[in-house]
Amino acid sequence: AVNLAIAFAMQGHENKVGLLDADLHGPCVPTMLGMQDQKLKVGPIGAFPALGPLGVKVVSMAFVLAGKEVPVVWRGPLKMRAIEQFLSEIAWGELDFLLIDLPPGTGDEPLSVLKLLPEMDGVIIVTIPSEVSQNVVGKAITFAKQLNVPVIGIVENMSGFVCPDCGKETHIFMKGGGKKIAQEYSVPFLGSIPLDPRVCEASDMGHPFIMEYSDSPASKAFMIIVKKIKAFISERQS
Amino acid sequence: AVNLAIAFAMQGHENKVGLLDADLHGPCVPTMLGMQDQKLKVGPIGAFPALGPLGVKVVSMAFVLAGKEVPVVWRGPLKMRAIEQFLSEIAWGELDFLLIDLPPGTGDEPLSVLKLLPEMDGVIIVTIPSEVSQNVVGKAITFAKQLNVPVIGIVENMSGFVCPDCGKETHIFMKGGGKKIAQEYSVPFLGSIPLDPRVCEASDMGHPFIMEYSDSPASKAFMIIVKKIKAFISERQS
Repeated sequence: AVNLAIAFAMQGHENKVGLLDADLHGPCVPTMLGMQDQKLKVGPIGAFPALGPLGVKVVSMAFVLAGKEVPVVWRGPLKMRAIEQFLSEIAWGELDFLLIDLPPGTGDEPLSVLKLLPEMDGVIIVTIPSEVSQNVVGKAITFAKQLNVPVIGIVENMSGFVCPDCGKETHIFMKGGGKKIAQEYSVPFLGSIPLDPRVCEASDMGHPFIMEYSDSPASKAFMIIVKKIKAFISERQS
Repeated sequence: AVNLAIAFAMQGHENKVGLLDADLHGPCVPTMLGMQDQKLKVGPIGAFPALGPLGVKVVSMAFVLAGKEVPVVWRGPLKMRAIEQFLSEIAWGELDFLLIDLPPGTGDEPLSVLKLLPEMDGVIIVTIPSEVSQNVVGKAITFAKQLNVPVIGIVENMSGFVCPDCGKETHIFMKGGGKKIAQEYSVPFLGSIPLDPRVCEASDMGHPFIMEYSDSPASKAFMIIVKKIKAFISERQS
């Protein structure tokens, strides 16, 4: 989600992209953007998002908690209320896109977001190539369909790894599962993002990978995925 | 959790290991053990676990659902009730160890398990090497300590990848984060499991990797981790 948000900003939407980190138990977005010391700034009309690279507006539970080791020990209703506040009481300002990063699965956080925002353009489902994750993806697609939210498409992450020493490609998490499940459920396949050690390295340093290594195959894959998402949305709105 | 359960069975506990797949939204254990077509068998004293390789007794939400694409759209209280039933109304029989596989984070499932089983021997926390996951692990450790459950230790998964073609090792998800966070929070470090494409391949085919490739570095790492867990538990009980 971090790299997608930055890719949107790079494609003509600087200062107009919002990113809500709705992983309440394990918020990682601030670390990946080097924003871990930020707090939400509160003003008379509500709180304001923190500003990340290219003016991406970020809201995360990490900006609210007292310390990085503090766990959020909440059940469903409190989690729904937190997400509701992030959506309604944050002065997001003018946005072209609001991306909401959700934890894996079909738990409280996705349920809350899909119920609170029935008019959203759609969901993007991220999978690894392996068959093992196919059941989880199938459930996510069914879940979105039950709640009448469009599936924009499937992104296959961790797709192949090219050895930096010899150039040989290995499919560490297998191959082709994303495309296969997209066909099986008749939803669009958006693309595959290859494994690149620099993604993790850049995330650890808080620099968006896609800005640092914009010529890498993974960055190019992100850029194509964003174009497809924008096409999906403009087709739907027309 | 699948490979740990099989490793326990291989170390003298055949037919005496239970594995509860408490990932209600994304149950993967049955696929990884080739048991996706099983259902829970119900008898007069409750339901019985399904039997996997080496007599590992498996219970999963996947054995209850009507189809693999059916999502579990439940909030906290229903999830707690399901886990309670899996723990109290399943005739597990004689067990040396019961492993409970939890989804990532500190959500409803871990909260339910830790509250329902305050006497458990402890929790094992799995991380990737990267700094990005360190906050999440810190939260999990704090969570266990708040609930007075011992932390048996940290396992670092996806540690390094050795190119099968040239032998060069790449740290795709960075390096050393597991050991570092164990030191920071003064909890034991149990070991690192290297990336091996055959882990995913074996999981997709429903064959436990650790039985198929018992000589691989990843399998040896699992075996050492199980020895350390057993030592932790016997020391605690003495």
